[in-house]
Amino acid sequence: MSESGNRKLAIICSKGTLDMAYPGLVLANAALMEGIDVMMFFTFWGLDIVNKKTMNHLKATPVGNPAMHMPNIVGVLPGMTDMATSMMRKEIEKLDFPPIDEFLEMIHDAGGELYSCRMAMDMMKLEKEDLSENVDEVIGAMEFMEKSEGAQIIFI
Amino acid sequence: MSESGNRKLAIICSKGTLDMAYPGLVLANAALMEGIDVMMFFTFWGLDIVNKKTMNHLKATPVGNPAMHMPNIVGVLPGMTDMATSMMRKEIEKLDFPPIDEFLEMIHDAGGELYSCRMAMDMMKLEKEDLSENVDEVIGAMEFMEKSEGAQIIFI
Amino acid sequence: MSESGNRKLAIICSKGTLDMAYPGLVLANAALMEGIDVMMFFTFWGLDIVNKKTMNHLKATPVGNPAMHMPNIVGVLPGMTDMATSMMRKEIEKLDFPPIDEFLEMIHDAGGELYSCRMAMDMMKLEKEDLSENVDEVIGAMEFMEKSEGAQIIFI
Repeated sequence: MSESGNRKLAIICSKGTLDMAYPGLVLANAALMEGIDVMMFFTFWGLDIVNKKTMNHLKATPVGNPAMHMPNIVGVLPGMTDMATSMMRKEIEKLDFPPIDEFLEMIHDAGGELYSCRMAMDMMKLEKEDLSENVDEVIGAMEFMEKSEGAQIIFI
Repeated sequence: MSESGNRKLAIICSKGTLDMAYPGLVLANAALMEGIDVMMFFTFWGLDIVNKKTMNHLKATPVGNPAMHMPNIVGVLPGMTDMATSMMRKEIEKLDFPPIDEFLEMIHDAGGELYSCRMAMDMMKLEKEDLSENVDEVIGAMEFMEKSEGAQIIFI
Repeated sequence: MSESGNRKLAIICSKGTLDMAYPGLVLANAALMEGIDVMMFFTFWGLDIVNKKTMNHLKATPVGNPAMHMPNIVGVLPGMTDMATSMMRKEIEKLDFPPIDEFLEMIHDAGGELYSCRMAMDMMKLEKEDLSENVDEVIGAMEFMEKSEGAQIIFI
């Protein structure tokens, strides 16, 4: 519960692949449409989702992902990650999901709070200016714990 | 809490590898045995766990998984994924865990609710008929948010 | 809520890579500093985090991780995992985070409860003696469900 007594969802995004970025964004969006308070916390590889340089170039990868039904030896050939990525990108477009930057803006405009992790930014030498302007604030793990009190927490 | 005031667990399964399928099934089963209400939501690669064609052929993969203690160059040789898979399958059998299809039936029969994600099914061009008959319903992300109110949510 | 009415966090660690070990430890530590009750449950590859033989040799891997911005064909060359690992280890040190064994001790001394999963230990043929002495107890999935009642649960 939030201070207002509202249901609350906190989503930690720690992965920067196309197939792990969309689940967080889709759940955040669905929760907002249900009137639930939403906060997202981008950390480790998940920073790629809000990094202006990488956000619209996330990749899906067929290597080490047996669900893609390709032998690993094929997955490492140059070009296969690009192929998996463009296939997934097309499917996402067909479903009318916006590209990452627009999706972040949509979530932010609907009241979702977006935070990035100070420690991970230090590790990757990123500054606030490197991130989407939809990111509200850079916070530490302790502040995340404070803000997520009473929330359902999802770690992706 | 569920409407009946019961403790409630919602498990989102987003990965289709053998080593990420069993944790969800084992936790669901343990929770049901403790009298906890359980719902599972299969999305993205997690659909492979309930897809009739793939459910009993999930693979463990040694590539990109340093915990398997094999150099990556070995992991991509044809046959290594099969070896890792058959090793894990044997260990799972020794522990008396059932194969995936029987495990789903066990969970369903014990009152666990199984849902698959409409969006992911559209992406992968799957129909309800392609899935295990133990899947109760195909739902969207908003319906998932509604059904998981008051639950402890786990994203795998 | 714990029995004492305190806020409670349960972290399931299922992955044994350097980049997935630290998020759990950092969140546990931050929660304890906020006065939150913390329990960690190590299962599957996450056992490597508390296994005395592996805990201080966890690896980051560039294969199948597009966020590392290296083509997969490079990622499988012998030595690349070691390079990614030593790069990450240096960054972690710069941020003044302790190595895994010291971090576990710190969390344990601050009141965090550390459990390992019996089933996963059986699969990997590990005994309690193989684990860090900071692990309080080996428990099953049902006991985990009991102990995590009222907690915010995070699955990493």
